[in-house]
Amino acid sequence: MMKNILVGQSGGPTAVINASLYGIVTEGMNHLDEVDHVYGMVNGLEGFLKDDYVDLSEDLTQKELELIKLTPGAYLGSCRYRLPEDLTAPSYPTVFKKLKALDIGWFFYIGGNDSMDTVSKLSRYGAQIGSPVRFMGIPKTIDNDLMVTDHTPGYGSAARYVASTVREIVLDASVYQQPAVTIVELMGRHAGWLTAASALARKYDRDNPLLIYLPESNFDFKTFTDDLSKAMQCRPDVVVCVSEGISDSSGRLICEYNDEAKLDNFGHKMLTGCGKVLENFVHNHFGIKARSVELNVNQRCSALISSATDIEEAALAGSYGVQAALAGSTGSMVCFNRVSDDPYSIQCSLADVNQVCNREKPFPSQWITGNGTDVSQEFISYVLPLIQGQIPHPMEQGLPVYAYRKRS
Amino acid sequence: MMKNILVGQSGGPTAVINASLYGIVTEGMNHLDEVDHVYGMVNGLEGFLKDDYVDLSEDLTQKELELIKLTPGAYLGSCRYRLPEDLTAPSYPTVFKKLKALDIGWFFYIGGNDSMDTVSKLSRYGAQIGSPVRFMGIPKTIDNDLMVTDHTPGYGSAARYVASTVREIVLDASVYQQPAVTIVELMGRHAGWLTAASALARKYDRDNPLLIYLPESNFDFKTFTDDLSKAMQCRPDVVVCVSEGISDSSGRLICEYNDEAKLDNFGHKMLTGCGKVLENFVHNHFGIKARSVELNVNQRCSALISSATDIEEAALAGSYGVQAALAGSTGSMVCFNRVSDDPYSIQCSLADVNQVCNREKPFPSQWITGNGTDVSQEFISYVLPLIQGQIPHPMEQGLPVYAYRKRS
Repeated sequence: MMKNILVGQSGGPTAVINASLYGIVTEGMNHLDEVDHVYGMVNGLEGFLKDDYVDLSEDLTQKELELIKLTPGAYLGSCRYRLPEDLTAPSYPTVFKKLKALDIGWFFYIGGNDSMDTVSKLSRYGAQIGSPVRFMGIPKTIDNDLMVTDHTPGYGSAARYVASTVREIVLDASVYQQPAVTIVELMGRHAGWLTAASALARKYDRDNPLLIYLPESNFDFKTFTDDLSKAMQCRPDVVVCVSEGISDSSGRLICEYNDEAKLDNFGHKMLTGCGKVLENFVHNHFGIKARSVELNVNQRCSALISSATDIEEAALAGSYGVQAALAGSTGSMVCFNRVSDDPYSIQCSLADVNQVCNREKPFPSQWITGNGTDVSQEFISYVLPLIQGQIPHPMEQGLPVYAYRKRS
Repeated sequence: MMKNILVGQSGGPTAVINASLYGIVTEGMNHLDEVDHVYGMVNGLEGFLKDDYVDLSEDLTQKELELIKLTPGAYLGSCRYRLPEDLTAPSYPTVFKKLKALDIGWFFYIGGNDSMDTVSKLSRYGAQIGSPVRFMGIPKTIDNDLMVTDHTPGYGSAARYVASTVREIVLDASVYQQPAVTIVELMGRHAGWLTAASALARKYDRDNPLLIYLPESNFDFKTFTDDLSKAMQCRPDVVVCVSEGISDSSGRLICEYNDEAKLDNFGHKMLTGCGKVLENFVHNHFGIKARSVELNVNQRCSALISSATDIEEAALAGSYGVQAALAGSTGSMVCFNRVSDDPYSIQCSLADVNQVCNREKPFPSQWITGNGTDVSQEFISYVLPLIQGQIPHPMEQGLPVYAYRKRS
């Protein structure tokens, strides 16, 4: 009996979230004996509740699918929608009525820990009512903070972007002789995985970034002053990489140290990141030139330096998820298990989605070195395979070609 | 009689300033009948005054030279050193004594309008004392604001980076349904050339960035409010690109609606944050989500999407400069004259460096359209040839390989 696939994307986009979509659509269409249509929710569950969906199996050419695979951002649109905790809430029968109306057999949600919460709730409610629909989570986050899995699709490309860009910023910072400090603020509210990848930028002994601060260590201004004084004896152009979410021992975020928080002309308080706070601190404390650079959303949407490994693994997560769901699995998230670093190889498996949702995997404390200012060689061995490989990007008129969903 | 070449880099780095260095070194070594050594000043004239220089013709392999050509940042190091206005100051005999000691016949300075001021002063002093040294400026700036020349090396790559990155930010901004405004702040204190290139990010009618503000137009908060209201009727995810140096009709910088600016060595205002000011304004005025992204130094140091046209033209500017100086020209800057847009072709010529130094070429007012919110098709035709072509970048362990000068 033929059924349909429904797939959605949720949470913040990454450079490879669409590669997972590609994996789901192509694998779904490899099973034409079981799968009739592959539908895509527009703007995740939030859009689906308004009956906003598209037919990906009918509307897309193979060429368009291949382009989607290399396009950053969420092709289907995303949402930050949270289902009620109470499974007796009316949203649940509404969702399942719509799933039934569309004859959905398999439901895929590509996202992070919040999205896995959706998979958990729907699969639990489905079990309660004896629904035949299978619910599968496909991991996605540049933060690399999902439990159980060795790493997450999206992290490798973001890590490669961070490493490559910090290497360029280090070159830029090195051109003048005058002492100067460059603070690079990287994404990561709670987990330092992405900031740790800035260590890959180094090319030689005592190369920048000389200092790396993760949210897993307490940040202390006095220690930072000492660290920085020492670093400046090493070279005049010091580059410091920090996670946006670093905080002091009381748990107060460094970005909240914006005491001299400026009011704009209209009397409103302007919030800035921890990079700006540290820039001001360095400038005032040391009396030297300081600047801060925030890599911002480019970390999750820059596709030109996406890692081929990451793109292919993201697609694999999608296709493996389809195979597992067709074989009957539900309430699970696709995981990667690392078999070996060198030669690098992984195997896919499934985790109970309840072990993943609403939890975060911190950067391991044993990989934090230099009294909270550096990361270990173990981390380098871990991350290096994830940033390998280059897929040439299609270009037109000198600019990257991306896929755009036609809007109604 | 054999003489030596001396070359220096000055001012802010670009992605292709080293391609010009490559052009000078390789062309110099093509004239072994006249040129003995090619020396490089370390940290420009400031370093040379401390006898800090290297022998580029002896120390570099061809392979290293090819890598330097693709390396961003100033390989020789840079400076922001300004010679005294008074040509009777003691710095002048000091410089010329050092030039004589090194048997320099030709002096090349790769830089922007401040660097051309150095070329002007040295050539004028040289003429006064009857020095045989030839002084030649090689243009360089991502700002594209040098007089006489059609465009400057460095601009094409920065424009390509801006267009490509804004296209990715536009995709990132499009994933949610909720109304939200993204402000992208781009480099350009006085000239809007780089910000104008964000128009290239658009792929279809009414695509983002919907609003583009250059420093050549007065920025007005009331007009901006009206522009933005209109844009939000067009789509919920509005992207606005602004130059860092936009100001109101009284000349007050928009970033100063926040904070007092500091002055750098040259008395330039150190600007940060008009993006942040506008983010805050939008959030408070419209009560919707707003964010700002500052592309920052990545605009001048990102080399992976450098335009092949720009790299080759930067090298050409260097080699043409050597040929001209060897033929006897002095007190000049190499210029590009555009022969045709399509097929694109340019010819090199020389400009009197006094027509270039300490002046700035603004973005043409007739190319500003949409009541100060857009740029014209004439600009698109102008800029498009400058961002073409891709040179594959050497990679190692998944990351770009760059050239590093050995430090003493």
